Amino acid sequence: MDTNLADRLLNAIDEKKNPSVVGLDPRIANIPEHIRKRAARVYGGGTRAVADAIVDFTSLIIEQIADVVPAVKPQKAFYEQYGPDGVWAFQRTVEIARNHGLVVIGDVKRNDIGSTAEAYAQGLLGCPDNLLGTGDVRRMGPVFDLDAVTVNAYLGSDGVKPFLKVCGELGKGIFVLVKTSNKSSSELQDKTVEGEGKVYRVMAELIKGWGQEFVGKRGYSSIGAVVGATFPEQAEELRAAMPQTLFLVPGYGAQGGGAGDVVPCFNEDGYGAIVNSSRGIIFAYQKEQYKDQFKPTDFH
Amino acid sequence: MDTNLADRLLNAIDEKKNPSVVGLDPRIANIPEHIRKRAARVYGGGTRAVADAIVDFTSLIIEQIADVVPAVKPQKAFYEQYGPDGVWAFQRTVEIARNHGLVVIGDVKRNDIGSTAEAYAQGLLGCPDNLLGTGDVRRMGPVFDLDAVTVNAYLGSDGVKPFLKVCGELGKGIFVLVKTSNKSSSELQDKTVEGEGKVYRVMAELIKGWGQEFVGKRGYSSIGAVVGATFPEQAEELRAAMPQTLFLVPGYGAQGGGAGDVVPCFNEDGYGAIVNSSRGIIFAYQKEQYKDQFKPTDFH
Repeated sequence: MDTNLADRLLNAIDEKKNPSVVGLDPRIANIPEHIRKRAARVYGGGTRAVADAIVDFTSLIIEQIADVVPAVKPQKAFYEQYGPDGVWAFQRTVEIARNHGLVVIGDVKRNDIGSTAEAYAQGLLGCPDNLLGTGDVRRMGPVFDLDAVTVNAYLGSDGVKPFLKVCGELGKGIFVLVKTSNKSSSELQDKTVEGEGKVYRVMAELIKGWGQEFVGKRGYSSIGAVVGATFPEQAEELRAAMPQTLFLVPGYGAQGGGAGDVVPCFNEDGYGAIVNSSRGIIFAYQKEQYKDQFKPTDFH
Repeated sequence: MDTNLADRLLNAIDEKKNPSVVGLDPRIANIPEHIRKRAARVYGGGTRAVADAIVDFTSLIIEQIADVVPAVKPQKAFYEQYGPDGVWAFQRTVEIARNHGLVVIGDVKRNDIGSTAEAYAQGLLGCPDNLLGTGDVRRMGPVFDLDAVTVNAYLGSDGVKPFLKVCGELGKGIFVLVKTSNKSSSELQDKTVEGEGKVYRVMAELIKGWGQEFVGKRGYSSIGAVVGATFPEQAEELRAAMPQTLFLVPGYGAQGGGAGDVVPCFNEDGYGAIVNSSRGIIFAYQKEQYKDQFKPTDFH
């Protein structure tokens, strides 16, 4: 296996001929009723039942998409709200996706100062401190073993370096928030910094610096950027500013971004971006045009 | 119980005559050896043993400090790196602290777009969606039931509003990152925005707007700010700019901030800040001056 995340992801994109990632946002209210009812029957409700329904659903989705897409992006918020059971469901989702050969990007948007960021980085991508570590820290086996995670760098490089360390040691990657897909991203990200352009450009320059050591054989860095499909003009500016940075592109589909809007996220070589769609794919069964064609119970 | 978090916190500060919060950062390597050995003996190592050692340790700390301080701030990173067992330990820590009458601030620095931020807000402060919710969303009981959490607002108000909603409904609070205590916080937060001052000032103005509806009887808002003790000049500027905002002040002690450095975080009424210390308190047993005075095994 290639030890550079960018190389692994680009090879997977070539293999599947598809630069897209399926966002796994298991909103319990949208999971098919027969799955929820079964879980409630077996586990009697509560967080254990929700966790079962989530894994039942996400594992069916993963089976259906594994031959078509190179990667999935489970959103940890929808899991961890259910406590230990929800986190078990997250672990299982990651494990199932990896067993299907998918690159797994944990959407966690973590951030903190150095030593705390290290706990996040080791916990999500690496191996946490073990119990018996006294002088030098010993490590236990991986707990989540994600391929990459999303990171918020409002705190600057102190909070990012522990992630870079794990990326270097284990061939993992991160995607740092630059210009997010939501409307109010302008409130901070579009402010103009004296002599440096917009706040998102300041962030882009930081990411370029962090990513230089992580450029793989195919010319892209494992230290990527999150750039929303909903802002094609800004994407064009950012694409030019950071040619070796892979973009993780949310906002396509339910959030309003169309196929044309993601074009500026790609370089002329046809690479440089992986486009996310969540609700539009995983809850497609609720759409009018599929309601007559498939029943939710057709997949099991 | 008062339904405004700022009022609850200020009343607790008055009761304990102490505007400080103990940061619970259970770094496993620093937990006393006899606690780790016991856990390893009973659970045979692995995440279950770590989780047991963490709760054993944090519960002893909470018992010792509950009469002296108004609040604790468990750092979720040190828990969640151990998967479901670690999250169980976080739940138990919160529960034990609440049972001791402490205000519990979850240091999670969460952030995401609207519907995902809602999952974080409901999961951490409120009640997540339940399994059987079909049309209108029904809620299960609280999973964590924290009094407040830290939030990163790089994404703007879309990602903060779901937290505000839960704060309004349940009398909870948030502390939004403004000027963090780490050295590299300058890389983004100290950039000068045309016509608006530093990036941290832009953030301060956003927080003032969000917090207006949440000002309690005592004149402070439940929508607070994180302002590091390591930057007293910036704290002074921010204190003047946002007089009704409570500051959660990290960086005191191990990070280098001294008693004089936190003074600018307070208003002339003697209120307005709660100062955090983590390592300096919970791992005091490792300091030279206490090594002769107490053995770690003196507390049980």
